[in-house]
Amino acid sequence: MAAADLDMANKIRHEGFHQSQVMHTLEHLTDNIGPRLTASPQMVKANHWTLKQLQDWGLKNGQLHPFEFGRGWSSESASITLAGPRQQSLHGIPVAWTPGTNGVVNGEVMMFDVNTVADLAQYAGKLKGKILLMGEDLKIEPPKTVIFERLSAKTLGDLKDYEPGARASYQSFMTNALRDSRMQSYKFNKALSAFLEKEQVAGVIYRSSRQGGLVRVFGKSHKQGETFPVPAIIIEQEDYSLLTRMLDRKEQPKLDLDIKARFHDDDMKSYNTIAEIPGTDKNAEVVMVGGHLDSWHASDGAVDNGAGVAVAMEAVRILSKLNVKPKRTIRIALWSGEEQGLYGSRAYVDEFFATRPEPKDPAEKALPRYLWSSPGWPIQPKAAYDKLSVYFNMDNGSGRFRGIYTEGNIAAKPMLSDWFGPYGDLSTGTISPLSTGGTDHESFDDVGLPGFQFIQDPLDYSTRLHHTHIDSIDHVIEDDLKQASVIMAGFLFEAAMADKKLPRKPMPTAPSEVQQQRLDLETEKERRTRELEGKKALETKVVY
Amino acid sequence: MAAADLDMANKIRHEGFHQSQVMHTLEHLTDNIGPRLTASPQMVKANHWTLKQLQDWGLKNGQLHPFEFGRGWSSESASITLAGPRQQSLHGIPVAWTPGTNGVVNGEVMMFDVNTVADLAQYAGKLKGKILLMGEDLKIEPPKTVIFERLSAKTLGDLKDYEPGARASYQSFMTNALRDSRMQSYKFNKALSAFLEKEQVAGVIYRSSRQGGLVRVFGKSHKQGETFPVPAIIIEQEDYSLLTRMLDRKEQPKLDLDIKARFHDDDMKSYNTIAEIPGTDKNAEVVMVGGHLDSWHASDGAVDNGAGVAVAMEAVRILSKLNVKPKRTIRIALWSGEEQGLYGSRAYVDEFFATRPEPKDPAEKALPRYLWSSPGWPIQPKAAYDKLSVYFNMDNGSGRFRGIYTEGNIAAKPMLSDWFGPYGDLSTGTISPLSTGGTDHESFDDVGLPGFQFIQDPLDYSTRLHHTHIDSIDHVIEDDLKQASVIMAGFLFEAAMADKKLPRKPMPTAPSEVQQQRLDLETEKERRTRELEGKKALETKVVY
Repeated sequence: MAAADLDMANKIRHEGFHQSQVMHTLEHLTDNIGPRLTASPQMVKANHWTLKQLQDWGLKNGQLHPFEFGRGWSSESASITLAGPRQQSLHGIPVAWTPGTNGVVNGEVMMFDVNTVADLAQYAGKLKGKILLMGEDLKIEPPKTVIFERLSAKTLGDLKDYEPGARASYQSFMTNALRDSRMQSYKFNKALSAFLEKEQVAGVIYRSSRQGGLVRVFGKSHKQGETFPVPAIIIEQEDYSLLTRMLDRKEQPKLDLDIKARFHDDDMKSYNTIAEIPGTDKNAEVVMVGGHLDSWHASDGAVDNGAGVAVAMEAVRILSKLNVKPKRTIRIALWSGEEQGLYGSRAYVDEFFATRPEPKDPAEKALPRYLWSSPGWPIQPKAAYDKLSVYFNMDNGSGRFRGIYTEGNIAAKPMLSDWFGPYGDLSTGTISPLSTGGTDHESFDDVGLPGFQFIQDPLDYSTRLHHTHIDSIDHVIEDDLKQASVIMAGFLFEAAMADKKLPRKPMPTAPSEVQQQRLDLETEKERRTRELEGKKALETKVVY
Repeated sequence: MAAADLDMANKIRHEGFHQSQVMHTLEHLTDNIGPRLTASPQMVKANHWTLKQLQDWGLKNGQLHPFEFGRGWSSESASITLAGPRQQSLHGIPVAWTPGTNGVVNGEVMMFDVNTVADLAQYAGKLKGKILLMGEDLKIEPPKTVIFERLSAKTLGDLKDYEPGARASYQSFMTNALRDSRMQSYKFNKALSAFLEKEQVAGVIYRSSRQGGLVRVFGKSHKQGETFPVPAIIIEQEDYSLLTRMLDRKEQPKLDLDIKARFHDDDMKSYNTIAEIPGTDKNAEVVMVGGHLDSWHASDGAVDNGAGVAVAMEAVRILSKLNVKPKRTIRIALWSGEEQGLYGSRAYVDEFFATRPEPKDPAEKALPRYLWSSPGWPIQPKAAYDKLSVYFNMDNGSGRFRGIYTEGNIAAKPMLSDWFGPYGDLSTGTISPLSTGGTDHESFDDVGLPGFQFIQDPLDYSTRLHHTHIDSIDHVIEDDLKQASVIMAGFLFEAAMADKKLPRKPMPTAPSEVQQQRLDLETEKERRTRELEGKKALETKVVY
């Protein structure tokens, strides 16, 4: 077996390295459009711009694929100032999907370290007009010494090897313990919201999960009827620690909060951008590429995941420019709602490839999907299920491609190895049996469809850019994006031209009775230990 | 020769490690008082608090030593918001000694990349109400991989060795080239101020000199009559780059600036805090310890230089607590005005130890001292000149003491080595022939008095804390401060008890006629090359 078309590989390289538009695409997404929080006006703008851009490049069957999501939200500005015992500007960013302050709110700071519903009662009648620190402070440790890294030959070598302890697939089963734990959090969050509203709390403050002046953000519920009731802001660890030490010393700190934020309820849907290079003699079969277009709101979402979008777009731009006539249809999908739990790609897979039965109990069905007692068995394939060859995703920062994770689908190795062939000077083309989790290829893998991510150089993605306020285009390396675009284009072309579709793993099935019994008996601690062990095995392989 | 009192070394260790107050002292300075910009109300507060604290610990002859400085300044809050073409909060801190905005100012952003007086004219009539980016943008490079470091045995070994290329002393001569270069800057800054005021510029923006979300600050002139005329703010590199890219793409960015800042002109002096443990049979002779108490305004000045102050204070606290009766007087000096050019320590040395003749030409005398054609020769010692044994300074972050720089006074090595003896388990006690510059020991060294700094572990001082908005107590390591305090106390005690004062380098003298001729002929480029070579020789020795 070998690559189908070596001439084409040279053409792809020429277009990708010497006529590249990948940085221009990324710059438009990040600088011009900016943060692309799911269902925000800027995300809608990104949907329309990417669709038009793909169409301008000659792609066909362009559409915005809608799915139910919830409220839109955006923030224009936010400031937080220490107003006493001394004056100092602090640095914070609002929690997504929380209300603004409607002008400046001044309040005394109070520690609110509560983790269970039972703990709430002790605070009744004490919180009116207060600004709460949500959880105790942790000591800031000296920073990891390495914040920017490329994978070493040693690590790449290790990634190739099968290790019995390492989890080859991210597929996880619902257990009683997991469901209990999630249900507790769900109930606690509901009770917390009601309590904070009833007690007329002025605002709440969360501690950034990165130190060194980085504000790392997250969001509250985007579902109608579940909106967090009070203004909420995430501040630098250093500022949070200052406030907690002031409280410890009984110097009552006071804050001025001024958050401009608003909800957008004109459309409860969000959208995936879809377009195609139609196939020829096997045009009903599909090869897909994509990444999530949505981002968090802290910065411009450059490495998470403007980079993945720009590379996917550049790959199809290269192929379209080269006027390829692939056997199979090449389809690009730019997902929304990834950051809130792979909403866009799950909705797409569910609608077009395979669905799962919903709970019969109406009470259970009314709960969020992640609280259902089972993911739903058996998986029910749709007509297009057999037509998909592969989905390639990019969402691990902007580092160059060093190889690919097979998600346990190791039989795909010979084909994937061949496709790296013409790019051997650009990448070692390491084929790993291991899995990576947490992004949209999982929506495919979960129903037994081949969904892959490339092995990427970690750079400073996990150490300082992921979801923080400095995820800007400044930290993207142009040569890495060009390399990734060229390899992505090559893989799409080869997958579209190959004699056969990629092999698949066996269709996932419900756990056996014995397995389910064992899972049901597992305590939350045992479940966490099991999951951590799987994670640890992976971490010995991957440096970030 | 050997340490005078090994019993005392054990007592110092016990007090310093098991009864330490160093973190408590530092916490008060940083959290409670906060930023201590020279001549600001918080700096005055710090002067009074340190004086009282030293007196409460039993030190005598406490006083605030005044010197002429200039205006005080403080800022209560600052916000900068991208108001168009899209909305986003940016992160900035005002330039010290610049005016506030007196409410929200909205203006269009404009690039203003001007370096000479002649370049100003082209902007006449074009700047009214604009907010200027002060200088072109630079590409942000991937971060250095190591941001937190301790000195290796290898580096410590290298630091011990004399190298012919390395400059053994920081003493620098005034050259025509240097004076021309400084005079040009001085004149340009005057012309710039007048121009910005005349053109009714709304505000100016500087780019932080550290990337990764860090805001690294500085100040404009604190002298009366030289105040910078328009609001000025330093913003994150990432934000600055965004604005410049928007300008490049002709998407006119607009900003809202809201800076609260004010001047304090009730007292044009600033103050050094001074106190003593009086000596006994050699009480006219003095051993000094200190560090600068002032800080920049971006954060709480924890490692620059709360750490140095806390260690100096802890060292004398330990000795006072142990009720030592030193032969020589031990004096602590906590300087002000260091960050603007060693003002406090220079004024003190000038007043008590040695002075230099001022220029005879009244026009030259009216200029700032750094523009005088000569530092002033010959040095004129005062009565106390012969009475000072040594001044120990701490101002290289909060890392533990690994040894000491002799500033070329290598004959001091046997005594210094002996003093490290009882602390051999805590420090290798590396004695380096090399110099370190840029802080208050220079004021002593410049007039031929022994002024030393210890070799400290660099930690993350230079990579991310120095003058940035995250210089908070969170990044100080308690064990390092205890170690430094114990060794500092040991050195003070030994220096106060030694049979002899420390040896001195020869009194600095004016350059010879031949030397001055050569210096006068040197071009600015040659001067910079010479200085860089000296610096480079040092940098091969010191890792940061």
